Amino acid sequence: MSHLGPLRRGVCAALLGQLLRPPRAVCIRALGCHSQVAQAVLTSQLKPHQEKPNFIIKVPKGTRDLSPQQMVVREKILDKIISCFKRHGAKGLDTPAFELTEMLTEKYEDNFGLMYDLKDQGGELLSLRYDLTVPFARYLAMNKLKNMKRYQVGKVWRRESPAIVQGRYREFCQCDFDIAGEFDPMIPDAECLKIMCEILSALQLGDFLIKVNDRRVVDGMFDVCGVPESKFRTICTSMDKLDKMSWEDVRYEMVAQKGLTPEVADRIGEYVQCHGGISLVEEMSKDPRLSQSPRALQGLGDLKLLYDYLSLFGIAEKISFDLSLARGLDYYTGVIYEAVLLQPPGQAGEEALNVGSVAAGGRYDSLVAQFDPKGHNVPCVGLSIGVERIFYLVERKMKASGKKVRTTETQVFVATPQKNFLRERLKLIAELWDAGIKAEMLYKNNPKLLAQLHYCEKADIPLMVIIGEQEQNEGVVKLRTVASREEVTVNRENLVAEIQKRLSES
Amino acid sequence: MSHLGPLRRGVCAALLGQLLRPPRAVCIRALGCHSQVAQAVLTSQLKPHQEKPNFIIKVPKGTRDLSPQQMVVREKILDKIISCFKRHGAKGLDTPAFELTEMLTEKYEDNFGLMYDLKDQGGELLSLRYDLTVPFARYLAMNKLKNMKRYQVGKVWRRESPAIVQGRYREFCQCDFDIAGEFDPMIPDAECLKIMCEILSALQLGDFLIKVNDRRVVDGMFDVCGVPESKFRTICTSMDKLDKMSWEDVRYEMVAQKGLTPEVADRIGEYVQCHGGISLVEEMSKDPRLSQSPRALQGLGDLKLLYDYLSLFGIAEKISFDLSLARGLDYYTGVIYEAVLLQPPGQAGEEALNVGSVAAGGRYDSLVAQFDPKGHNVPCVGLSIGVERIFYLVERKMKASGKKVRTTETQVFVATPQKNFLRERLKLIAELWDAGIKAEMLYKNNPKLLAQLHYCEKADIPLMVIIGEQEQNEGVVKLRTVASREEVTVNRENLVAEIQKRLSES
Repeated sequence: MSHLGPLRRGVCAALLGQLLRPPRAVCIRALGCHSQVAQAVLTSQLKPHQEKPNFIIKVPKGTRDLSPQQMVVREKILDKIISCFKRHGAKGLDTPAFELTEMLTEKYEDNFGLMYDLKDQGGELLSLRYDLTVPFARYLAMNKLKNMKRYQVGKVWRRESPAIVQGRYREFCQCDFDIAGEFDPMIPDAECLKIMCEILSALQLGDFLIKVNDRRVVDGMFDVCGVPESKFRTICTSMDKLDKMSWEDVRYEMVAQKGLTPEVADRIGEYVQCHGGISLVEEMSKDPRLSQSPRALQGLGDLKLLYDYLSLFGIAEKISFDLSLARGLDYYTGVIYEAVLLQPPGQAGEEALNVGSVAAGGRYDSLVAQFDPKGHNVPCVGLSIGVERIFYLVERKMKASGKKVRTTETQVFVATPQKNFLRERLKLIAELWDAGIKAEMLYKNNPKLLAQLHYCEKADIPLMVIIGEQEQNEGVVKLRTVASREEVTVNRENLVAEIQKRLSES
Repeated sequence: MSHLGPLRRGVCAALLGQLLRPPRAVCIRALGCHSQVAQAVLTSQLKPHQEKPNFIIKVPKGTRDLSPQQMVVREKILDKIISCFKRHGAKGLDTPAFELTEMLTEKYEDNFGLMYDLKDQGGELLSLRYDLTVPFARYLAMNKLKNMKRYQVGKVWRRESPAIVQGRYREFCQCDFDIAGEFDPMIPDAECLKIMCEILSALQLGDFLIKVNDRRVVDGMFDVCGVPESKFRTICTSMDKLDKMSWEDVRYEMVAQKGLTPEVADRIGEYVQCHGGISLVEEMSKDPRLSQSPRALQGLGDLKLLYDYLSLFGIAEKISFDLSLARGLDYYTGVIYEAVLLQPPGQAGEEALNVGSVAAGGRYDSLVAQFDPKGHNVPCVGLSIGVERIFYLVERKMKASGKKVRTTETQVFVATPQKNFLRERLKLIAELWDAGIKAEMLYKNNPKLLAQLHYCEKADIPLMVIIGEQEQNEGVVKLRTVASREEVTVNRENLVAEIQKRLSES
């Protein structure tokens, strides 16, 4: 599931400042660098060993490299997410980075212009995927699968317009879990919410809340408030902005730009203030206006059932029925949800953080049919975890804790205090590698011992094997525990066994 | 490192047949489907629940989905490769899928036209990355890093022209390991070859050989044979085709298309037949013609040193000095290498397979300087593993073995033989999930017991928890070992502990 489009908003200024600063990058942009002419000039400057004073080296706007430190954090987060998906029986899937453009059209309504199109190079019209949901639906239809529980982790690309790009990446990673198939109501939907709770708890991001609504309730509300059916989707898009805009601004957009009468907008305005638990669901079922809408009642009925299942899962208190939740993506047809963090993780005294939504999803029962030539359908429900935001929070927390992050897993460093011991080091390290031990040495013929110790300490390598002339003659090596500086002499032929013993103990 | 461009050739017809058939896909292509007009027509047909008789659902040419079965195989292979990279102390890195086009120009010589360009959408000119090597060099220069040992696993994209696209994917995964920095000669280079050996051995692909040469030997050979310096790179590209074309055809290209005199081509023809071990290196050092070239002698000197280190690593017998090896990528400056499988893995009686190169790499000492405004340089050496080919071989081997591949890791299935037991199942499964146990159940209010048993057996789930009215009343559940059909009764409150005990034993 992708679901994270419209909710990648509401990032506060503190976060923006961080995100806008590419890590360790030279990013001053040369004026006019991006015209075809300028590019040709740059190209001609790209000869080796030649001064290139106007050449600015950078990554594309809205993208970034992940340094080894960041990769470690990223991998820890992804591990937790993927292991939760697997705990719930999901299978892996991979789809191409781009799809035929025609596969993506009409799936994203107002957001279609945000897709990255590829140049037509004499073949097909292609676009980079905008989420993982539409490719999943395409996969189901193409392979005529009637049910599937799958997860997918991968990059997606959205060319956010410069005005609103602040704090968002144009290339970002999504972690999606979806359940496709014809099942009894609300059972898979409840599992999706359970998964969101499990992941957010496992990541220790502090307290969180999951807002829940239903597209049928939203549409029913529009209906009874007097919104013409043709404006449902565009009014829904406006409503989705409530987490970053005030009701007054959203109301203005609805009336001045989208042509609602002030009375209709005000009726909506009353509903979007409502949020609560199961009792609000009951209350809304009896609401004089809303109860006139059969589809709203259907949605409310399902929400009641959902709450029942969520109680059995022990997570009902994490769920808030919120009539302002709209979700911007066009393909939702039933229950929708969005998880928000309630307080910043980490130490007291840190500045408060509002990172907005960190996970979201919903039910989309008609998307697969849009791909099937005969309109055969597969109902689906799923969720998407907003890794970039979580990544930012976890990275920030780790930095605050001052804990050093190891970027390698090297267990043993092979050193020598003497000159002309390269061959012995090479032989020894190959033995370690062949035994599966993670080992490094300096790529120098005659490295200084201090340089070797320094490397070892800097990289936090726990063990050091030292071989010198005397050891060589006696058929031994020294094995040093770097932290304690303790050294023991080990028989050369027992070295691998001794190292393995120590590593298994630690 | 990328290095896998030109060696993704030489795939035999048997392999081609397999690769050209997208897995479980409808891929008949509608005529004219890809014009702008045709696309508009298709788009208008994309309404839900409407017959779309001309709508062909497919993935872009040269790409494919990876099914859950394929993902399992892929992950096993990547795990082995990445764990080897980590064993050698490499750090992880990630770079964007696309780069500024200007960052990629002049890096790939003849292959530049194979890049996927994005549409200029009012911003920068962007292209999908063609390999992981150039982004790595860009990263080093941008961050002014003087040394780094990194691995990167990711997709790259090459728009191979239709004529030669057979059997190649346009989107494929690369696994690169590179050592950047100023070090003593041939030590990191030897480690790269050691890594290739370790990975190919770990993957159990059968016997293999690594062809080694040096760009300075290639250039020196061209020089003493009488090739004009301006034609070195283009003649090198021709020579690189020797693994899929005969010498006669390559010679024809050199003479008829690239303007070499027949005499010059014939002199090259003598050299490219030579391959052997360290003794051939010695022999070539004394070759009357070749020894006239100082750069050839430099290269041969380094190859001697390399052989010495490879002997210490115990892999010299896997290495073949091969004067026909050219490597197509433009950025190599020193030692180059390419691993080929010598015999098909798997059972006797299987058809013989020539999958060509499965790994390759080399030294590129001038690439980083091309990115640095002041021409500061960082010498690099690295390797790239050709995962797609290895993937094909391992998948084929697994299919031949008839071994069933589990696509989920589910440990426990929660079942009931009775109606109206959904709530009890939900409560129970949530307990299992919260204890970290991988569990599934059917999303039905009243599933048939047979359907539940069937699901469990089909998915190879080892344990089944059964809860019914009697068990509920007695405060117990039944725990069934699916394979043996053995059932025991367990106290409800001991269930998690009992399951964990069994899982830790198995």
